[in-house]
Amino acid sequence: MLYAVIMAGGSGTRLWPFSRQNRPKQALKLLGDRTTFQHTVDRLAPLIPPERILVIANPQITELLRPQAPALPPENFIIEPSGRDSSPAVGLAAVHVMRRDPDAVMATLAADHYIADTEHFRDSLAAAAQVAGQGAIVTLGIQPTWADPRFGYIELGEAQEIVDGFRVYAAAAFVEKPAPERAARLLEDGRHVWNSGMFIWQATRLLREFAIQMPESHRALSRIGESLGTTEADRVLAEEWPNVRRISIDYGIMERAQNVSVIPVSMGWVDIGSWQAVADALPGDAAGNSAVGELLALDARGCYVRSDERLVALIGVDDLIVVDTPDALLICPRSRAQDVKAVVARLAETGRDRYL
Amino acid sequence: MLYAVIMAGGSGTRLWPFSRQNRPKQALKLLGDRTTFQHTVDRLAPLIPPERILVIANPQITELLRPQAPALPPENFIIEPSGRDSSPAVGLAAVHVMRRDPDAVMATLAADHYIADTEHFRDSLAAAAQVAGQGAIVTLGIQPTWADPRFGYIELGEAQEIVDGFRVYAAAAFVEKPAPERAARLLEDGRHVWNSGMFIWQATRLLREFAIQMPESHRALSRIGESLGTTEADRVLAEEWPNVRRISIDYGIMERAQNVSVIPVSMGWVDIGSWQAVADALPGDAAGNSAVGELLALDARGCYVRSDERLVALIGVDDLIVVDTPDALLICPRSRAQDVKAVVARLAETGRDRYL
Repeated sequence: MLYAVIMAGGSGTRLWPFSRQNRPKQALKLLGDRTTFQHTVDRLAPLIPPERILVIANPQITELLRPQAPALPPENFIIEPSGRDSSPAVGLAAVHVMRRDPDAVMATLAADHYIADTEHFRDSLAAAAQVAGQGAIVTLGIQPTWADPRFGYIELGEAQEIVDGFRVYAAAAFVEKPAPERAARLLEDGRHVWNSGMFIWQATRLLREFAIQMPESHRALSRIGESLGTTEADRVLAEEWPNVRRISIDYGIMERAQNVSVIPVSMGWVDIGSWQAVADALPGDAAGNSAVGELLALDARGCYVRSDERLVALIGVDDLIVVDTPDALLICPRSRAQDVKAVVARLAETGRDRYL
Repeated sequence: MLYAVIMAGGSGTRLWPFSRQNRPKQALKLLGDRTTFQHTVDRLAPLIPPERILVIANPQITELLRPQAPALPPENFIIEPSGRDSSPAVGLAAVHVMRRDPDAVMATLAADHYIADTEHFRDSLAAAAQVAGQGAIVTLGIQPTWADPRFGYIELGEAQEIVDGFRVYAAAAFVEKPAPERAARLLEDGRHVWNSGMFIWQATRLLREFAIQMPESHRALSRIGESLGTTEADRVLAEEWPNVRRISIDYGIMERAQNVSVIPVSMGWVDIGSWQAVADALPGDAAGNSAVGELLALDARGCYVRSDERLVALIGVDDLIVVDTPDALLICPRSRAQDVKAVVARLAETGRDRYL
């Protein structure tokens, strides 16, 4: 059976001031009337029923997210004692999935992606699950629309098969976030796709990779898995969690894994990593402005405004991002959206914790 | 004796959203810890004592201003039934001043000017009062610092005398707000000064001008003056006020008056007519940013921020004006500060009265 594991940990600082330490972006309504996490759950229906959707996050984030998805069984929220990057989270999810269904295929998905064409997404997921069911690790690759240097890239190898209309390729290589010039070359050669971070694999296959590549982590995960359902579970988890290596899936598993396939997909995918990404995902008006809230624009073009409480009047400005919250206001050009994290760093350095 | 008459009516829309219909700019703390009106009163001491400072405004504005100047006798607040431009206000003030002192010289001053060098201002006022005491209408002309097209200009005529170190000239002509090219020529020829709108004259001289140039208005003002101190005063004022012509002093009196003198002054004078003027009047930090409120600027230059409640974070923007209030936020380049009135007009057109 196909399970979804939504990786909902992580906070990130580039969506400040809307996102805060105790208001992570996945819990916020960044696009439309549903939170990013809710969109992630919603778009799985009807392919994956709620009882096969698991969510993994730390206790604080879990508390925020649980009420947002009342259809999910409470026990489907897997609590990681603390955020330790993606490999431990995926490993912990795998032992939970294994316990429910030793033959399960699991799709690990991020809680902060936006996907415009949800039907195409589900179709690609179903195709990937078929391929994964034969033992491969499958990743969804995004057909790049420009030479974005913020993403990792995957080089397409040999064409393997066509499944339900989706072409499946061997993954020839994983390329870390390239410099802009290299990204341009990768875009041009037509043989590279963006690494979406969505992986589909059998739980057994994933745990086998742990055994091969990170045997100590595998031992810890196995002990955690064996304790599930016993009175020892919490104690063993607390004891073994620090023994699972803190490393990303890309570095910890994917770069050295064999038999990895990639399915290129075009589905209006957005990694909601910055205000620029949010702005890009929203349709603008005739002047290219998009607003959540009340905007009065005179001679303003290409602006994104998020203001839940105040009227925002813009005169004669172009390509600005304006994010207004009850206690803090951000103004920056779209092109500087990545630097929001520097603002947050500055706030932390200067002890202004109330804004973090 | 020298009286000051502070013309405190008027609202103006270019300091929106900080200034609103019921929060006129003169009642607001735009520069420093005192309101613009308070600065206007403060800077008259010790030249003119509180009992000789009159304030004229409509009932609503009077109610706002009276508590701001507790040192002024309550009866020194002259109430105009409604705003009817500056000629009626000055005429009404003149009949009040006449009643107190038929030989009085009165200085009519605006409530929304900022003056950096207050001592030099008082010295120029004292000199102007001497000249006015001899029967002339005297105006303070501001030495222009650039070819500002937002002001009227006064052409200097023949040099008349030097009073306490101030050169007094005949006023040869009043020039309405010139086109930018003409303003540049006026600046270059060295014979023009800005019309500050500050006039110093005997109350009798002013009323004589009314008699000559607007006889019907003069009759109305005379009836109002005769009723002062009687039980009929309110009734007569209400009855005659509409008969005083609605026109500015410049058009109604100055352009055709004889024996007008001008004293050029440099005193750091600012007509607080727009956010650009406010921003220009404030010293900036090393990057040219000035803020009232908490500003975090990364790579931002030449910005003015007014935010009484919120932290404002700016990244990579230049020469922006940001004005944040509890229900509305304005963002525009300094160069577009004049267009704020268009925002207010748009709000009125679209029925968003709560923001006006």
